[in-house]
Amino acid sequence: MRIYDIIEKKRFGNALTEEEIRFFVNGYAAGEIYDYQISALLMAICINGMNDSETAVLTDAMAKSGDMLDLSRFGANTVDKHSTGGVGDKTTLIVAPIAASLGCNVVKLSGRGLGHTGGTIDKLESIPGFRTELDNAEFMAIAEKCGLSVCGAGANIAPADKKLYALRDVTATVESIPLIVSSIMSKKLAGGAKNIVLDVKTGSGAFMKTLESSRELANRMVAIGKLSNKNISAVITNMDKPLGYCVGNALEVAEAVSLLRNNQSDGDLYNICVTLSSEMVSLSKNIPIDEAVLLVKDAIESGKAYECFKSWISLQGGDVSVFDDLDSFVNAKYISCIKAEKDCYITSVNASEVGVSAMMLGAGRASKLDSIDYSAGIVLHRRVGDRVKKGDIIAELRSSSVSDHTAAKNRCLGAITFSQEKPSDELLIYDIIR
Amino acid sequence: MRIYDIIEKKRFGNALTEEEIRFFVNGYAAGEIYDYQISALLMAICINGMNDSETAVLTDAMAKSGDMLDLSRFGANTVDKHSTGGVGDKTTLIVAPIAASLGCNVVKLSGRGLGHTGGTIDKLESIPGFRTELDNAEFMAIAEKCGLSVCGAGANIAPADKKLYALRDVTATVESIPLIVSSIMSKKLAGGAKNIVLDVKTGSGAFMKTLESSRELANRMVAIGKLSNKNISAVITNMDKPLGYCVGNALEVAEAVSLLRNNQSDGDLYNICVTLSSEMVSLSKNIPIDEAVLLVKDAIESGKAYECFKSWISLQGGDVSVFDDLDSFVNAKYISCIKAEKDCYITSVNASEVGVSAMMLGAGRASKLDSIDYSAGIVLHRRVGDRVKKGDIIAELRSSSVSDHTAAKNRCLGAITFSQEKPSDELLIYDIIR
Repeated sequence: MRIYDIIEKKRFGNALTEEEIRFFVNGYAAGEIYDYQISALLMAICINGMNDSETAVLTDAMAKSGDMLDLSRFGANTVDKHSTGGVGDKTTLIVAPIAASLGCNVVKLSGRGLGHTGGTIDKLESIPGFRTELDNAEFMAIAEKCGLSVCGAGANIAPADKKLYALRDVTATVESIPLIVSSIMSKKLAGGAKNIVLDVKTGSGAFMKTLESSRELANRMVAIGKLSNKNISAVITNMDKPLGYCVGNALEVAEAVSLLRNNQSDGDLYNICVTLSSEMVSLSKNIPIDEAVLLVKDAIESGKAYECFKSWISLQGGDVSVFDDLDSFVNAKYISCIKAEKDCYITSVNASEVGVSAMMLGAGRASKLDSIDYSAGIVLHRRVGDRVKKGDIIAELRSSSVSDHTAAKNRCLGAITFSQEKPSDELLIYDIIR
Repeated sequence: MRIYDIIEKKRFGNALTEEEIRFFVNGYAAGEIYDYQISALLMAICINGMNDSETAVLTDAMAKSGDMLDLSRFGANTVDKHSTGGVGDKTTLIVAPIAASLGCNVVKLSGRGLGHTGGTIDKLESIPGFRTELDNAEFMAIAEKCGLSVCGAGANIAPADKKLYALRDVTATVESIPLIVSSIMSKKLAGGAKNIVLDVKTGSGAFMKTLESSRELANRMVAIGKLSNKNISAVITNMDKPLGYCVGNALEVAEAVSLLRNNQSDGDLYNICVTLSSEMVSLSKNIPIDEAVLLVKDAIESGKAYECFKSWISLQGGDVSVFDDLDSFVNAKYISCIKAEKDCYITSVNASEVGVSAMMLGAGRASKLDSIDYSAGIVLHRRVGDRVKKGDIIAELRSSSVSDHTAAKNRCLGAITFSQEKPSDELLIYDIIR
């Protein structure tokens, strides 16, 4: 078998065999096939596509290029949740304890943020003492105790994906449904959960800008999940505007804590979290979705989910006493405000631009080596559709290392549009694909 | 300007600007852009194509990446001929002296053979003493004396093309009309001739297997030549079977000498040579093609072309006395024959397979480092359409280094098909595009 023939076959739009796909993934991971051959193949895949069978094999081959988590001790109700990345997306911090408090096992690998989107690991590390690097024994032991543990994905989770992604990133071959699907799903397969719920973000702050492309991505991921013998569903959600009120690591943890304490039982964040955790519970426990929704709402209202959250944070070394005074937990050295210049409605808040503004304040990384200011971020006091009066605070910018907010403020202000007309309501959840 | 954006633009099928094309050619030639980025771009070009304006700029950029021959001292009647590569194609050895004897200036860079096709430089080096490495002064001086000189193309002729071709060769991006056109035409532009005649081979022994693809290639090359301010025409010729009777270096020189001595004034080789040299003369001297045909035939019949040939060979150090006894010039140590097994017609002779058989005898290189046995090759005693009787010699295999002909003989025999039915005549020249 020769890589040349495989490239040529895909160049002319033909489907690759399982053997051919495993040959190029394993050969590339082992350093036996050159970058310049794989980049030509990736471009041919981008333009000519891959069918579901090819994508399933590619996913499996990338997953098996590294460690595969063995969650068999937890039985069939292991569940993972994955978001395609958004701004203000703290749902994992909420849905994981909800599902765990209802008897699911959430043994989850997570990532860090890069660019305008955040990462669960960074958010958790804003909690004093919280450890995100666990060895396998501890990772499993914590989940056995409280039904939930979250660990940073190590270098040997789907290493072929890491190598391929780095190459795609410099060869304009990132935007490709089969390549995106296999990249995401290979890490989910390596993560070992039987049940998977995907949160596919769509809109200005998402990787997928249009509903059509998001739906295509969701459909393909669900198809690949099923081909890989998983119970899986995908929720397509709005990411035109930031999710919830807070963007930034400690700020988002605090917002999650507030929701789990039952202080915020409406709004987009609450609704998305109920939807996602109901999917998780319904899939894992094989119960109707209506029944799962009732269980989920009760887990929040009763405080069961928050108790589970606190046990989990403690077991991973986090100091839960900080949640007693959330204001001092989210304390920042520098605070500035964006105020309304006239009476009007807020008609849009560009999620991606708000994400970049938060990053400029120190909440995120422009490159992998940057460090993070956990206190930095943006609090939106007003949301899309709100009526504001001249002088009202629309957003608060916060940081402890960046002292001059001018650039971030201008960027954030540019992300917001105003009008005398009240904007029409937007959908929050577009579709659920099962 | 970023290479990423250029790759992405072509990925989505958009035309690149002149500035973008020069950026990637010059950047790659200078080692400032990575192989893996260029191979992704090449794949996007293969699948999404390039229009004539893009191809013309690519051609010009590749030509200008190295030395450009200055033939201004020879005026406007400099002429180059290029073949897309065939088996038994010794036309340069014939048409160059014909054109030179009629007042054209043929100052020509040529290449070596690789794989199943031969190269003019290898053929000329079968003549004792002949030098194919000339410095610029000598190259020009010889042409000034006899109207003709041929030199091996140095490393600095279109170096960007060399680098791109090497990459295409390992990334399944060779077959692409704009990339083939720009590769061929960049070397023609660097060669400096004002007039260019292309021999586009089509059929089993050619790079282009179908008439349709050959016509497309010819049309695109003529278009690019005109955009580059050249007088140009392309002759589309049959390469289903080998051209002429001989395949192999000294054998082909001897066949060319025989034709120039007016011993072979019919047959496919004669007809193609008359067509090509008439095009060369008509373009260079700006005279009607009918008039050029008469001049060309007279140049052969009168011996004028052969005299020019001998002057040229002598001026480049070749020993023309070897042509006095062609049998001893083509002498080979080992000779074997393929004979007819029954009375029948020869219905086809696969050119590519005959080329490979000759290579197996030592006439060509499987890789660039292989050495050549100039005496090796194949003499076809009978051609397609001939009636043979049982025991007649169809082909003669010759070599001086390879002593066992079994493998080459089987390969060559496999290239020939027989039938009781006389095959219908095939066209030799399909079209001329001006």
